[in-house]
Amino acid sequence: MAYELYYWNGIQGRGEFVRLALEEAQADYIDVARLSGPGMGTAAMLELMRSKHEPYIAFAPPFLRDGDLIVSHVANILFYLGPKLGLAPGDEQLRYLANGLQLTITDLVAEVHDTHHPIATSLYYADQKEAAKARSAAFISERIPKFLGYFEKVLRQNSKGSSHIVGDTLSYVDLSLFQVVEGLRYAFPKAMKAYAGDYRGLAALHDAVAKRPNISAYLRSDRRLAFNEDGIFRHYPELDLVP
Amino acid sequence: MAYELYYWNGIQGRGEFVRLALEEAQADYIDVARLSGPGMGTAAMLELMRSKHEPYIAFAPPFLRDGDLIVSHVANILFYLGPKLGLAPGDEQLRYLANGLQLTITDLVAEVHDTHHPIATSLYYADQKEAAKARSAAFISERIPKFLGYFEKVLRQNSKGSSHIVGDTLSYVDLSLFQVVEGLRYAFPKAMKAYAGDYRGLAALHDAVAKRPNISAYLRSDRRLAFNEDGIFRHYPELDLVP
Repeated sequence: MAYELYYWNGIQGRGEFVRLALEEAQADYIDVARLSGPGMGTAAMLELMRSKHEPYIAFAPPFLRDGDLIVSHVANILFYLGPKLGLAPGDEQLRYLANGLQLTITDLVAEVHDTHHPIATSLYYADQKEAAKARSAAFISERIPKFLGYFEKVLRQNSKGSSHIVGDTLSYVDLSLFQVVEGLRYAFPKAMKAYAGDYRGLAALHDAVAKRPNISAYLRSDRRLAFNEDGIFRHYPELDLVP
Repeated sequence: MAYELYYWNGIQGRGEFVRLALEEAQADYIDVARLSGPGMGTAAMLELMRSKHEPYIAFAPPFLRDGDLIVSHVANILFYLGPKLGLAPGDEQLRYLANGLQLTITDLVAEVHDTHHPIATSLYYADQKEAAKARSAAFISERIPKFLGYFEKVLRQNSKGSSHIVGDTLSYVDLSLFQVVEGLRYAFPKAMKAYAGDYRGLAALHDAVAKRPNISAYLRSDRRLAFNEDGIFRHYPELDLVP
């Protein structure tokens, strides 16, 4: 039975980290909110989230349905899917290390969201623009180097070589790091250009992931939406700066 | 060998979610940064985080060392420890549901942090007080009801009864929900009093956890630090309001 991915239509958002894993593995899946017909579309997603009989509902998309099980949160979905898709380390201890790295990506993504929504998700960007400028400036000067410096260091210190972030095989964390680099370059091109010399290992990993046949085909397909200003990674020129 | 918990000394913070599980299970553990002597204290924690030879370093505390393995991030630590401590559901599918709930708590905790630090972690609260007021007002009016309403609903819809959030036995998620209620009541007493009628199930779970012998003994011990204004849950009267 196909995996059912539930995520907001129209944006890459957090769902994209799951899509990249499903696409790399050529898994059988449907992107429910992007489809139409009975039991499909955003309405079906919301209905499941608001269910009054389902014992375990998700707080927010993305979530994945696999038969009777509903798994929510990107890192949890990837922890669950990883071994099934051949995208998790074979060693159990390394799986916890992969999960720790993925949760650091989760934190980074939440901070990226808050660069354009530092006060309230319910407010328009235009209504929190001054706070967004202040938060983005701090994010660029302090948080980008801290997060990318961390991933770069883990990559370099990997005793199995720097082609992958965990062990010596491709994992879903590598795919997510591709998306992090891609997204940050979209949102903050000036800042990322200035930092280019500081994350060469990550950039090489990004390029290697982009060239994988299944990922490359996916990125050229219409299933890969373009970044836009409704997603997590948004490009507002006034928030980008040279650190 | 004792588990080694690494977390900032002087605050409950994110480390507390792990401590509650270790304490409930009466596990053999040491709280490294709070101890003194060779290999102990904050310096030892920072040294491990900054290691240039350790292949998998943590981005931030808390992290747990169990022999050769370093597990980072609260939800990951609890996912790892849960089965060993008898605090995870026996059923594997329920473990992913527990992890999804714990990751929702992770998101809530990050938002609580940002009520007093909406612009930058590196700035003092006093230097971002106006933004903190705006963010706290939105947090109180929109996010507290959304998060607590979600947990209350999951508790009520649990097909095994509403004494526990997952299945019919105590899990680390129950312990974390105790801490969430305790922390929100400390930080936002006016708001939480106003919302009291909306989370009766959660409040009952909170009280039941507080009365467990091992938790009760822990809360009365000097290992349980008081909430304070260096932690995640901070009480600034100017940020609390009746919704």
